[in-house]
Parts: sequence; structure tokens; C-alpha cells
Amino acid sequence: MHKDRHFSGVIAPVLTPFGEDGTPDPERFVAHCQWLMDEGCTALAPFGTTSEGNSLGVDERMELLEELADGDIDTSKLMPGTGACSLADAIVLTRHAVELGCGGVLMLPPFYYKAPSEDGLFRFFAEVIEAVGDDRLKIYLYHIPPVAQVGFALPLIGRLIKAFPQTVVGLKDSSGDWNNTSAILEAYPEFEVFPGSEVFLLDGLRHGAAGCISATCNVSAAAIRKVYDNWRGGDADRLQQGITALRQAIQAYPMIPALKAIIAHYRQDPAWAQLRPPFTPLAEADARKAVTTLADAHGFRLDFATAA
Amino acid sequence: MHKDRHFSGVIAPVLTPFGEDGTPDPERFVAHCQWLMDEGCTALAPFGTTSEGNSLGVDERMELLEELADGDIDTSKLMPGTGACSLADAIVLTRHAVELGCGGVLMLPPFYYKAPSEDGLFRFFAEVIEAVGDDRLKIYLYHIPPVAQVGFALPLIGRLIKAFPQTVVGLKDSSGDWNNTSAILEAYPEFEVFPGSEVFLLDGLRHGAAGCISATCNVSAAAIRKVYDNWRGGDADRLQQGITALRQAIQAYPMIPALKAIIAHYRQDPAWAQLRPPFTPLAEADARKAVTTLADAHGFRLDFATAA
Repeated sequence: MHKDRHFSGVIAPVLTPFGEDGTPDPERFVAHCQWLMDEGCTALAPFGTTSEGNSLGVDERMELLEELADGDIDTSKLMPGTGACSLADAIVLTRHAVELGCGGVLMLPPFYYKAPSEDGLFRFFAEVIEAVGDDRLKIYLYHIPPVAQVGFALPLIGRLIKAFPQTVVGLKDSSGDWNNTSAILEAYPEFEVFPGSEVFLLDGLRHGAAGCISATCNVSAAAIRKVYDNWRGGDADRLQQGITALRQAIQAYPMIPALKAIIAHYRQDPAWAQLRPPFTPLAEADARKAVTTLADAHGFRLDFATAA
Repeated sequence: MHKDRHFSGVIAPVLTPFGEDGTPDPERFVAHCQWLMDEGCTALAPFGTTSEGNSLGVDERMELLEELADGDIDTSKLMPGTGACSLADAIVLTRHAVELGCGGVLMLPPFYYKAPSEDGLFRFFAEVIEAVGDDRLKIYLYHIPPVAQVGFALPLIGRLIKAFPQTVVGLKDSSGDWNNTSAILEAYPEFEVFPGSEVFLLDGLRHGAAGCISATCNVSAAAIRKVYDNWRGGDADRLQQGITALRQAIQAYPMIPALKAIIAHYRQDPAWAQLRPPFTPLAEADARKAVTTLADAHGFRLDFATAA
């Protein structure tokens, strides 16, 4: 265990439930966050890609974060997504998260304009850090080139760490490319690196990663936590094989709609299956098939007995 | 001239000037808009790609639009960008534009999540239109796949027109692909289609396009307007060659920094050259070279005598 880490372990990019009117549902949201912490998540990353975070408005993100703070969630365990295409929105969201006591923020680069220069991206983060002007700010860079298209190349990461060693403390690597993750781990050993999938959890931990931040933590945090807690044990490889197989089975479906369909099924709460456009829910037959396949082939089920 | 068109002619996606503190400068912004209308723009499209529109915050966009309304700009001639990744932000921005009397809005699709389904994109626009719930709303779809990655395929355009014939009235095609523009013109002859570059202006007009919405209108609206006004004349091809050559000369530089450098030079106002990250200004030598090349090879110069 790395003594100085701000975050480590199993972190869920929390799904965002919507009410009948299409607006985010704070009650279901807080209950899901509480259940995830009970299931073994070490922290939560609301407003990530899996959260449909970029489909939420600036005000909606701030209101939901306040609901978590009011809902007995320890904000020091929160790493909300506060990135935005707009410098102004990124500053507002980041400042708000720091003021609520969030232990960190997970920041996308500005992702509308493609192929920005290293200088431009560096300046973006420098201006956010300067504008927020708070030593409590801890930034985790969110590298997800398959979706954002704009990412963090090694030299940019190094430049940000060097300029802001107390602030730019880690990265989520959702490149899906283990070579990229291991290159970052090797280049910046003190950096808190989280692969974006539990498929890389054991390999990551063996090479100095801090844990993982993964969509599927929304439904399988307990099993993923078991790998995290036992990664030095003799059983680690077998446990990893189990969570890898489950991840791959879920990945056979469109990830966000599938996760929501699974939760809707086990909570017996159809409203949970709703998504905000541009996403659409899984067709009913596909949702049924996903649940059945996971149960039959992987013994997968969810127990919401602990939920609020 | 098509009698029922809401917009037509030469439309500038207005550059956004920033003050010393990095925030948008309303005074320079309003003055530039007034000058553009004096130069021959038939309408203005603030908060487009050229405007660094996606680098502006939701509040900043609304405040700047109010400055235009207060600054004697006829809001019926405004087609502000109100698209956003977030349905909530898109609704807020679109409603605000309609309430200010804007003649139209230019809407990007939600562009964070890649490869959304046709259903998901249709539902996004349907929900914006329903939430705004105002007959005055006129939407121009903003197709710019090289930047947004997410675009409007022909069947989606047709479905939106069919469902909302009074609301979804046109499209800006910044694909840079004339085959795409002409396919849309052919499929939907009543649709108000604007190529995203004056390079396609004359061809566009000859095939039923409504005009063009082009970055370079920020510095060469008068020449582009001349093509628009004389497209049936014997001189049309020669005039088109002139604006095509100028566009290509400007395009040799990064477009947005180059346009700002040109305006800063001729206004003798270095602040105009500022950009918001992730953009960075042109190096001084490049800026000088751009101005000199355009002046020497194209006789290009700007006259701000008419500016406020």
C-alpha cells in the first residue's frame, strides 16, 4: 500500500438514474451510491462517462453532488467528473467540488476541438488550477481517447506533474491499452494510475497501479474488491479470471444501457433502465437475455438488501 | 430568391474576443458584430466552432447574446450556436435564444458519446423542441463531422424534417464534402442548406443552397457577399475564384488563430489575437507572415473605418 495516496482501490463511475420526467433522480442516485460503498467501493466517481456525465447540465451536476453531500456520503471519497469543453464551466464545476470537500476530481481534457496542442492543453489545466486556487484541489486526468478523442500524451502528463506536483496527482486510463498504462506507471511511479477496466486490475496492481475505476463496479464491486484485497495472495489469478470473464460477458452489450437494465431488473424498478438521449435503453429482449446469460453462465446476481 | 427562407446569404460565425483576464469581451464582440453587418453579412452565427463557442460557458454564451440584443443588433438576424453534449444545457441555451427573438439556432448534435444511434439523436432533438415548446424556434442542424465526429446522416435529417417541418428548417454542412452537400440539397429541396465554406458558395447557389456560413466571413464578408449578390451574372465564376483563392491562402494557417491575428493587426489591437485554451495564438512571425502574404498575393486588407 502506497502511504501517500489520495485515492486507491475500487472506484465506481456511478450510473445516473433519471425520473419519469427525464431529469436526474436524486433519491435513487444517493441510494445507489450508498449501496456501492456498502458493496466495497473505496470511493465513487460520479459524472464520468458511465454516468452519462456529459449528458448532464452544469447545474444538474452541481445539484446532484450536493445531494450526495447531504445524503451522508463522505465527500472525501468522491472524485466527480468536472471536465468540460469550456474552461469557464470546468472552473465552476471544479471549484464547486473542492468547496464541497471532494477528495479529488476526474477531469476530461477539453474535447470539442480536435488535435489541440500540448501547450493549449497545458494552459487549460493551468488556468483551471489557478482560477480555483485551492491547495485541496487534487486532479485526476481522465484519458479516454476512444470517446473523448483528445487525450493525455506522456509528455503532457509529465509537464503537468512537474508544474503542479501537489495538484495533478493521478490519471484514469480508459485507453483500453495496457501498453499505455504500463508506460505511464513506469514513467511516473508516484502517480496514482487507475486502469479504466478491472480486466487490468491485477496486472495494474503488480506494476504499481492504485486500483481501478470501472463502469462494471456499478454491479460487481464486491468481486472486484476481492481481487484488490487479495492481489498478493495465491488465489489472485483465479479471482482475476472471474472478474475478467464477467466484464467480458457484460461488454457483449452496450455497456451503459446494459448496466442500467441489470439494476432495473434486480431492483424490480423499471425506471432505473431509463437513459438520457443520445443513449436509448436496451430492447426488452436484449435486457432479458443479458440478465439471464449473466445469471446462468456466471452465477451473477445483485442483492439490494443493504440498499437504503 | 426562395420566398419562404428564414435565413439566406452570407453568415459569419462570429469570432469571440477575450479581455486581459481571459473572459469574453462584450465591447469588442458587439463592435465586431456591427462591423460584420456593415460589411455585408446578412446574418450572424455567434458561438459556432470559429467562435470558440464550445470553449465558452453556458452562462457566458447567454450573457454575450444579451449584449448583442442590447447592442442594437437585430436578433432576428442571429443564429447562435445552442447545441451541447448535455440535453439540459441545450434546452437552457435554446430557450434563451428564442426568448431573445433570435431568428434561428445552429445546433450541434450531442458530441461526447460517439456513434450514437439515429433514435438517440432524434430523441435528443425531439426533447429539446418539446421542452422549448415555442413555434418561433427554427433549428439549423450543424453537421461538422471533422470536429464533432457525430454528424447528421441523410435519414436522420429526413426524419427530423418530417417530424418537425416548421422547426427543423436548415443545416450547415461543414463536412467539406460537396457530395454530401449536394445529396442533402437533392433529397430535401425546401431545406435551407448552407455550405460551411465559401469555396462551395457558387456551386451551392446553383444547386439550391441558401448561402454560406463560413469562418472567413469574419474578414472577407464583402467579397463573399459580392458572389452571393451576383451569382447569376456573367462575372460570377471569376468572383468565386477570387474568394476561393483567398480562403485557401488563409486556410494555410490554423484558421481561428489566423483570423484573430489578422483582425488584431488591422485594428491595431493586440488583445484581439487572444484565444482561450485549448487554442493558442499564432506565433508572432507566423502572424506577420499571414498578414503580409494575404496583402501581397491577394491585395487583402481590412478597413475598420465603419466599426463602432
